[in-house]
Amino acid sequence: MLPFEIEKESFRMIDEILGETTINPLHAPLIKRAIHTSADFDYATNLCFSDHVVERAIQALKNGAHIVTDTQMAKAGINKTTLASLGGEVHCFVADEDVAKRAKEEGTTRSAIAIEKAAELNYPLIFAVGNAPTALMKIKELIETGKLSPELVIGVPVGFVNVVESKEQMMQVNVPYIVAKGRKGGSNIAAALCNALLYMAVNRQI
Amino acid sequence: MLPFEIEKESFRMIDEILGETTINPLHAPLIKRAIHTSADFDYATNLCFSDHVVERAIQALKNGAHIVTDTQMAKAGINKTTLASLGGEVHCFVADEDVAKRAKEEGTTRSAIAIEKAAELNYPLIFAVGNAPTALMKIKELIETGKLSPELVIGVPVGFVNVVESKEQMMQVNVPYIVAKGRKGGSNIAAALCNALLYMAVNRQI
Repeated sequence: MLPFEIEKESFRMIDEILGETTINPLHAPLIKRAIHTSADFDYATNLCFSDHVVERAIQALKNGAHIVTDTQMAKAGINKTTLASLGGEVHCFVADEDVAKRAKEEGTTRSAIAIEKAAELNYPLIFAVGNAPTALMKIKELIETGKLSPELVIGVPVGFVNVVESKEQMMQVNVPYIVAKGRKGGSNIAAALCNALLYMAVNRQI
Repeated sequence: MLPFEIEKESFRMIDEILGETTINPLHAPLIKRAIHTSADFDYATNLCFSDHVVERAIQALKNGAHIVTDTQMAKAGINKTTLASLGGEVHCFVADEDVAKRAKEEGTTRSAIAIEKAAELNYPLIFAVGNAPTALMKIKELIETGKLSPELVIGVPVGFVNVVESKEQMMQVNVPYIVAKGRKGGSNIAAALCNALLYMAVNRQI
């Protein structure tokens, strides 16, 4: 089987297992791609979408939105060729020297400072957070103080400390969001959700 | 909380949830780190370890073993600073032009050809496969034909087509292995298992 055939058959199997589960057709490609990357069917029920978020995100990508991730892993997993075909790029500043220096000086996390640096980019921005609740909380703060107005926030940090809370709080912010309720998420899920939106934006099958 | 404190508290919470679950103490750091990266407690029961694999893997890392991954995502997730402190490096050849060219010529996957290229490296090797069952099947073939003798195979591809079978077959090969039985796994899990072994090799807490 060729890679595309394997992917097609995988999605057919996911459909079969999902069976009669009720899923909004616009959310389905994102939910299925999260399941495809984790084999974890919890993503059929834990992903939360703000109103019209998928249509808006697709439009933003078509308009050349750039994507900001909180980890190199999420950046590595995003289909940069498809994103570039729409005029976008992926940015991740967490490993930058100036970010590490400022985080140390200000006694905060590199993840939070990396978001501040990203907020200075002059592009429409999609944030994809798969790891750091502090990144998500920094995005919330910048939105609420009028310093950032993202096209979309993908809030899927994974873990045990402040993770559930950061996601609940993000869903209270007036911004288009896709959030995985509960502890689950990760860089792989963040990348998968970005890729699902990218493939919808370029009308790629699956 | 500082990042290290967050990690410590996360592992405490994982311990609390695992409760009385019986886990081999040598396997525990790997299982917990897989749970830490996914918040998925299935990894408490689906990870399978060949005899003495953890002791052997730690020794291999201390001897300067290099790690080969099947995806850039897994490579991105591995702690390369800790690996370098032991004399190792991470390699991933899947995006190389010569690999793409040969895969096309031979009508096979880039993942399989990337493993053939890695097998020519003159280092003790640990393979960490989080995505491609064809990579795992190529490793099996090279071992069985005497062309490869890895220190360890981490076999945690995720998915629906040939994934379960490839992992079952890997566990029949005469090689030290760590395998996630069933459909689950991923690049994040592959990286987490490598990092757990690295931290054991340098006696890092948690």
